[in-house]
Amino acid sequence: MSCPRITPRHLAVSITAMLMGALSSLATASTSTSFPDAAASDPAKLGWMIGSPPPADRTVRFEDGSYFQFPAMRWSVSNFRQLMPTINVSRGLGAPVPLQSALRNDIDAISFVPLGAKASMTWDQSLAATYTDGIVVMHRGKVVYERYFGVLKPEGQHAAMSVTKSVVGTLGAMLIAEGLIDPSKHVADYVPELASSAFGSATVRQVLDMTTGLKYSEDYADPNAEVWAHAKAGSPLPKPKDYTGPRSYYEFLQTVQLQGEHGRAFAYKTVNSDVLGWVIARVTGRNVAQLLSERIWSRLGAEQDAYFTVDSIGTPFAGGGLNTGLRDLARFGEMLRNDGAFNGQQIVPKAVVDDIRHGGDKQAFAKAGYDLLKGWSYRSMWWVTDKEGGAFMARGVYGQRIYVDPNAEMVIVRYASHPVAANSANDPVTLPAFEAMAQYLSRLP
Amino acid sequence: MSCPRITPRHLAVSITAMLMGALSSLATASTSTSFPDAAASDPAKLGWMIGSPPPADRTVRFEDGSYFQFPAMRWSVSNFRQLMPTINVSRGLGAPVPLQSALRNDIDAISFVPLGAKASMTWDQSLAATYTDGIVVMHRGKVVYERYFGVLKPEGQHAAMSVTKSVVGTLGAMLIAEGLIDPSKHVADYVPELASSAFGSATVRQVLDMTTGLKYSEDYADPNAEVWAHAKAGSPLPKPKDYTGPRSYYEFLQTVQLQGEHGRAFAYKTVNSDVLGWVIARVTGRNVAQLLSERIWSRLGAEQDAYFTVDSIGTPFAGGGLNTGLRDLARFGEMLRNDGAFNGQQIVPKAVVDDIRHGGDKQAFAKAGYDLLKGWSYRSMWWVTDKEGGAFMARGVYGQRIYVDPNAEMVIVRYASHPVAANSANDPVTLPAFEAMAQYLSRLP
Repeated sequence: MSCPRITPRHLAVSITAMLMGALSSLATASTSTSFPDAAASDPAKLGWMIGSPPPADRTVRFEDGSYFQFPAMRWSVSNFRQLMPTINVSRGLGAPVPLQSALRNDIDAISFVPLGAKASMTWDQSLAATYTDGIVVMHRGKVVYERYFGVLKPEGQHAAMSVTKSVVGTLGAMLIAEGLIDPSKHVADYVPELASSAFGSATVRQVLDMTTGLKYSEDYADPNAEVWAHAKAGSPLPKPKDYTGPRSYYEFLQTVQLQGEHGRAFAYKTVNSDVLGWVIARVTGRNVAQLLSERIWSRLGAEQDAYFTVDSIGTPFAGGGLNTGLRDLARFGEMLRNDGAFNGQQIVPKAVVDDIRHGGDKQAFAKAGYDLLKGWSYRSMWWVTDKEGGAFMARGVYGQRIYVDPNAEMVIVRYASHPVAANSANDPVTLPAFEAMAQYLSRLP
Repeated sequence: MSCPRITPRHLAVSITAMLMGALSSLATASTSTSFPDAAASDPAKLGWMIGSPPPADRTVRFEDGSYFQFPAMRWSVSNFRQLMPTINVSRGLGAPVPLQSALRNDIDAISFVPLGAKASMTWDQSLAATYTDGIVVMHRGKVVYERYFGVLKPEGQHAAMSVTKSVVGTLGAMLIAEGLIDPSKHVADYVPELASSAFGSATVRQVLDMTTGLKYSEDYADPNAEVWAHAKAGSPLPKPKDYTGPRSYYEFLQTVQLQGEHGRAFAYKTVNSDVLGWVIARVTGRNVAQLLSERIWSRLGAEQDAYFTVDSIGTPFAGGGLNTGLRDLARFGEMLRNDGAFNGQQIVPKAVVDDIRHGGDKQAFAKAGYDLLKGWSYRSMWWVTDKEGGAFMARGVYGQRIYVDPNAEMVIVRYASHPVAANSANDPVTLPAFEAMAQYLSRLP
């Protein structure tokens, strides 16, 4: 007889995996022509979840994983709260501090040549090419450009994907600056449960800079890749009765084994951020959602609460579970551009921002072989460019970005829903577009 | 062989059922001595969900239904978002309008005699007796009393339980006032899918006033009670493979059959609110969460977004799924006390508030046999007292309340987590306590 059982599909294994940002293991894809373009896949035009009830072919469900299939995913990334349990990141109760505005109408015409292309593209065209859901450009502290597409609105939250890592990394670096975490100590000194995992022998600094040696594959094409076990462990849905694996993020992290050596090469693996989240929780008595509210979100003058997705025991997904309003993400980026000072307060120590701008180990980074990011490095979960002046970036799959360019006095934040997860798919447009914007703004009187 | 299967437990059937407020079918319980008192069950002192990970016996999980067992429930009611998917009720992006404060320090000593008791009780004592999580008293538009207990904070949201119904009823009454809904029309005129259910032949007014004749039992002690099928249908968790029942609130509502006659007697049944939510969605093209934001929450000067729990296709639970900040609930109540005007705007038409204050059919209400609520009535999903001047109340299981007393120029909002669901368990304290407060405030110069 055939028993009714929950299949892996029911575990919505995609939840963690798809949020993670497997930049390293996904193929360097171009914007494939096998996907409908931004206009044809516009989630507002397609009418997902409209109607009472929505039509069957426009209903987005969590349990079968279909919510993360393109183009339904373009609705989901602005509506994760409707799909799974979450924990709030309170903005506090006071009045938001409005972002000043100095909109410029000549920005859409800025032109640049995408990497590997011959024809030039305008800024306006780049938005559709990258399946942008929302973008804000700030210059000298004012909003000079702001657009929304599809179902993202100013009053709404979008998945930050692996931009989450940079936010959590910033919290970790703050705790180091305060002396609460010693980056040269081993992870096991803070979380003894990790002693026999690969993390036991890694330093907090190696975790922050992702130079750990881990047997952890984020190759979604391989059914035996550890990313799937991670996803199953972190799913908030019930496990099948015969499931014997780890049942939470914390339980999964204890199973990760050493491969190679710590400290030699940059290797982008989401579990490092989850481990950092655990260290932070152990040191502060607060999970990353609570700490983010207390230390940053409630001090930014944010317009909206943010939120993290959680596993079945309430652990925020520190590797990719943050969702925020776009303008609040701009406030966060602008705070960093201002050396951590914003809204009349020093929110992040200047030394933390300086350290991120200064970057990490370029040789270690080079070993990871990112063709489009030559000369870059990775520091405290931020991607640090080779630009003079220390521009740095938070990157999340499907096109999420915070780009802070202190020299150009510019911050760009973008939420997107590109059909290809890997940022290598949109970098050929994104990188020169952002660079062109920086040059344009730098020339302004 | 024994097959691994999802049991009804896994469906978290409790979710809908426990949220519903089966006031009519639950026994008239007293505050039983078999439960620990408020101090002994304080969710902050018990340390639910504290730690990384929390201890096993302090972990609150959704999937096994344990989240709703007392005393874990005292944590859950302030943290539903961490347990299940939800939809946001945006407050908008502007500055909250602060509530003015004129706190009085003599309120705790107000004394009254609980119904059926001989000894008197003070207001302060009544808070523990009713397992209060938070309470705000407003008088003449100012906060005169405000307390929080356990894990509820001003910056947090608590389950409103069946107070939800009154909020949704208010939306329905607004649409009637605007002419968008004709209350004398049949439900099937708006939702043809309900034509062959009991609701097909009910008028919208009968649904609003819960005088429908429905074969729908909310007797949790009966495993065949329809409430369990409702709960299974509305659970956001995956259904077992062999499940053949309705898979959403909307699908369940179509199965409810006629029993008796519409229009004769008040019968408190949660499905009426879900049906009203469906009518509202069909008429406006917005679900109740979206409409509540648009019409009310974004105009109240609210401090926080509110939210609804949703089923697996994103339908807000109109019968009991609202969660709000306590002070925002006070703003809502104060708006109604001011004939619908608040924050410089007419938010709800005065005629709607007048109609609620005027009450519903007292004879129909009397037939339901509420011993403690003699002379009351039910109108547009509000409980209307027999007090002169038309004091009215929203009531949710476990002690949730909005009490608007126009004559006393008073609004009380309370969130609570009483161990007994039925309000008959806390009414002997609540009703005379609120009355004593009204008398005290009325005597102030």
